[in-house]
Amino acid sequence: MATQEQNRQFRLAARPVGLPKRSDWDLTSEAIPEPGEGQVLVRITYISLDPAMRGWMNDARSYAPPVQIGAVMRAYAAGHVVKSRHPDFKEGDCVVGVLGVQEYAVVDGKHLTKVDPNVVPLSAYVSVLGMTGMTAYFGLLDVGKPEPGQTVVVSGAAGAVGMLVGQIAKIKGCRVVGIAGGEAKCRYIVEELGFDAAIDYKLGPISTTLRELCPKGIDVYFDNVGGDILDACLAQLAMHARVVICGAISQYNSTERVKGPSNYMMLLVMRARMEGFLVMDYASRSAEAAREMAGWVREGKLKWRDDIVEGFETFPETFNTLFEGGNTGKLILKVGDGR
Amino acid sequence: MATQEQNRQFRLAARPVGLPKRSDWDLTSEAIPEPGEGQVLVRITYISLDPAMRGWMNDARSYAPPVQIGAVMRAYAAGHVVKSRHPDFKEGDCVVGVLGVQEYAVVDGKHLTKVDPNVVPLSAYVSVLGMTGMTAYFGLLDVGKPEPGQTVVVSGAAGAVGMLVGQIAKIKGCRVVGIAGGEAKCRYIVEELGFDAAIDYKLGPISTTLRELCPKGIDVYFDNVGGDILDACLAQLAMHARVVICGAISQYNSTERVKGPSNYMMLLVMRARMEGFLVMDYASRSAEAAREMAGWVREGKLKWRDDIVEGFETFPETFNTLFEGGNTGKLILKVGDGR
Repeated sequence: MATQEQNRQFRLAARPVGLPKRSDWDLTSEAIPEPGEGQVLVRITYISLDPAMRGWMNDARSYAPPVQIGAVMRAYAAGHVVKSRHPDFKEGDCVVGVLGVQEYAVVDGKHLTKVDPNVVPLSAYVSVLGMTGMTAYFGLLDVGKPEPGQTVVVSGAAGAVGMLVGQIAKIKGCRVVGIAGGEAKCRYIVEELGFDAAIDYKLGPISTTLRELCPKGIDVYFDNVGGDILDACLAQLAMHARVVICGAISQYNSTERVKGPSNYMMLLVMRARMEGFLVMDYASRSAEAAREMAGWVREGKLKWRDDIVEGFETFPETFNTLFEGGNTGKLILKVGDGR
Repeated sequence: MATQEQNRQFRLAARPVGLPKRSDWDLTSEAIPEPGEGQVLVRITYISLDPAMRGWMNDARSYAPPVQIGAVMRAYAAGHVVKSRHPDFKEGDCVVGVLGVQEYAVVDGKHLTKVDPNVVPLSAYVSVLGMTGMTAYFGLLDVGKPEPGQTVVVSGAAGAVGMLVGQIAKIKGCRVVGIAGGEAKCRYIVEELGFDAAIDYKLGPISTTLRELCPKGIDVYFDNVGGDILDACLAQLAMHARVVICGAISQYNSTERVKGPSNYMMLLVMRARMEGFLVMDYASRSAEAAREMAGWVREGKLKWRDDIVEGFETFPETFNTLFEGGNTGKLILKVGDGR
């Protein structure tokens, strides 16, 4: 590694109001750091762009501390070990972890996970076999608890988590309705992924279509979006339904107060529950889940789609496409030459 | 029974907009009906006045069909058997059931429950040992699942259900904070009922006080009120908290859209759940619960307070006091001479 090589980083410059602006970020450059004892230097190849990152930018009580102003933006990423001072890792190993929006990261070996790029491509370890896949798996199965023959509705259905949720629900024998924005996404989840039906929320209020497509009500609603869609789904719950709160992307850039679900009293009417979860709580079971997910991938039962955008410097604009319905599948920023 | 005796009834005249008006009710009178085979004629003594009744007046999808225009208003009540054509009941028996807002009811024996006025007064069978008590018992214990040492917060804490919830939580070894309106109610639940603390929501926003009184967060929030108080409690949830949705009295007369809980994403942050329930689902276990509750009453661990208003004809005004914070404890309408 030539000493003149630099590590570029996106740092949080200001707390965004609404959709992040270019000026909320600082693109900085510093010398590539040296790993200390027990640490590993990773060259980052794929940065996972997740709606949750928007929450980490706010100075608010949440499950993770806010990213501080001036700090490198937090992100999951995958890359290759360049230099290791940890016995479990050697140069060339493929790894994933919370590496940040940067080109190189020094991280304690205990916070890294080694992955095998012969099973799926490296990028898939921040998608179907990464946090995204685990989020779909545990959120649907552990919190939603779908049973064969039940009706599962998922919003953000053409997004990274949503498309996996729908397919896992199909594997489990459920009837699956996806809610997505635009005809192309709706066609994709039905024709390519095998959802039973799709609702294009961009065509207007979804309640009537939702009622027609879920004549026995919704047993599991997996919510990635919040807002009016959450309300419409609450109104159609079946008895003892489960509402899985995974995200609320419609609200993350709101400059007004979050829109709470007006129809929450349907939880009482239908003796239903609404429950939030965080994938990090399932860390101890992620190997088990990854094995099952990998099996479904091998058998062709579980498809995934990575929406890979090249160019580290495009991060601010690429990140924002998440909130503009720009991506189909997992949005990933590719860094460097992608080796 | 003299043939000239009449049965007065309050019938729903119109669907109310907001707080029910006198003109939403018809006071009618008809001959006392005769029981058919398998039926029982009951002279009603105590009519249970419950916030849930407001919901039954709306033409909306709910857990029970709406009361039809022109029909006798639905209500739980307790009374005495006047004439029985059912083998399980005889004249003079004390009974409870869904008898309606009227002075006499003819009802199938299978829908009646016999009660013993030597254990507690008859009125208590529509309160601490009735649906009210069962609501508190199953909602707190079965849905809320409090554990010793945990913090339980209950709103409507000086109301019929709330005051029992708080006391049961104390019996179970919890720290209990009640939210009620006005100094007298707050003093009552702490000094008379043994709550650890009370918050008077009429003094202004409760968030600061709530945080001070629940330094480790709220493990179980039993919600009777909805609105801003639900939001304030969501903001203070502890990890893996349970929010029990029992009612939303602040919203029942709203002429605007129900105010959904803006802070519902705290369910995700704290991996918490919000769940509704209906006491009627626990019918098969109510004897067990009533036995345990009666035991606590005998041991002096569980106090209750019935707010008994006399005069059948006062029903419209008395019912409305529920929504005006007028009652402390269980609001009951006493009919006739109360024998």
